[in-house]
Amino acid sequence: MKADGQKFISCTRIAEGLDLDPTSVRKDLAFTGIIGRPRIGYDLVELMEAIATFLGWRKSKEAFLVGAGDLGRALMGYQGFREHGLEIIAAFDKDPALIGQQIHGKEVLDVTSLSDLISRMGIFIGIIVTPAAVAQEVADTMVAGGIEAIWNFAPVRLVVPDTVIVENVELSASLSVLSSRLSDARKAPTEQ
Amino acid sequence: MKADGQKFISCTRIAEGLDLDPTSVRKDLAFTGIIGRPRIGYDLVELMEAIATFLGWRKSKEAFLVGAGDLGRALMGYQGFREHGLEIIAAFDKDPALIGQQIHGKEVLDVTSLSDLISRMGIFIGIIVTPAAVAQEVADTMVAGGIEAIWNFAPVRLVVPDTVIVENVELSASLSVLSSRLSDARKAPTEQ
Repeated sequence: MKADGQKFISCTRIAEGLDLDPTSVRKDLAFTGIIGRPRIGYDLVELMEAIATFLGWRKSKEAFLVGAGDLGRALMGYQGFREHGLEIIAAFDKDPALIGQQIHGKEVLDVTSLSDLISRMGIFIGIIVTPAAVAQEVADTMVAGGIEAIWNFAPVRLVVPDTVIVENVELSASLSVLSSRLSDARKAPTEQ
Repeated sequence: MKADGQKFISCTRIAEGLDLDPTSVRKDLAFTGIIGRPRIGYDLVELMEAIATFLGWRKSKEAFLVGAGDLGRALMGYQGFREHGLEIIAAFDKDPALIGQQIHGKEVLDVTSLSDLISRMGIFIGIIVTPAAVAQEVADTMVAGGIEAIWNFAPVRLVVPDTVIVENVELSASLSVLSSRLSDARKAPTEQ
């Protein structure tokens, strides 16, 4: 909408676009501290700024990624994360063929140096994109180095101290939801 | 657990492992039709089979993927999806440099042939891994060809007929949750 030159947006428009309840949208946006104008709505730029500040996107956060396979490379190359304040500054892997390579301008380092570099560089976000079998070991190493938050793409439930935040991305779970909804729809078509 | 040679698993064990309520686990698993044995639990292999059948993983589903960038390649190479009954049989792109290439043994085809091939081959799952700006156009083409379910990785809300299922994977949303939890934790440490 901003690119289209629009200046204002109402809760109703946001609610329609995202298929949400307008009252929830209003309440949720109130948390950011922004105040809308009756019958006009929010100033679009102010709203974007308020959301970004509230969600911490304005403070750039450096992260280490472990697992320089296809998905790891994809995450390193994804420009969208920078808009959300995340900068992946290096990748780690145990594969000697990958160590020393550059991926999207970032170096792949030996995973044996992970814990040491986390603590020396004060990195507090770790991204795990390894096979499930080694994810817990990587998480332990990250926690030992001082990581405070783990973004986990490995299909495994990590065990970490309560003080460490884990956010799981479960691609297979999302696929299961899709296939289960599809199989329901094919069993019982909504219309004849 | 199966790999460890274990034969049975109880609701309590599952609940502990996944940090869920044991009663919910029991109720949810009952939907698959499996019956547990008092004080022993479920036969592990039977349970895996019941879940897989219930979620439709036993029926292999062919899918087309559009957008052969880094993330598209990662999805094409991910072996885990096949265990969940999904087989990505071809990728589509508009980039002449990619068309005709093989990625993980699958060909990259010209996106102009997408709609035609969907209907001729009877494909009903489409995966969108394009930039946000072209995702809606790709979704329209998929729907025109006869796609029934879209797995959408583009950061955009797709508009499709009610009969088409859309499952969104919002990586940036997941990152936002992580950074917001992290910023809360840093503002108010749980312990002094």
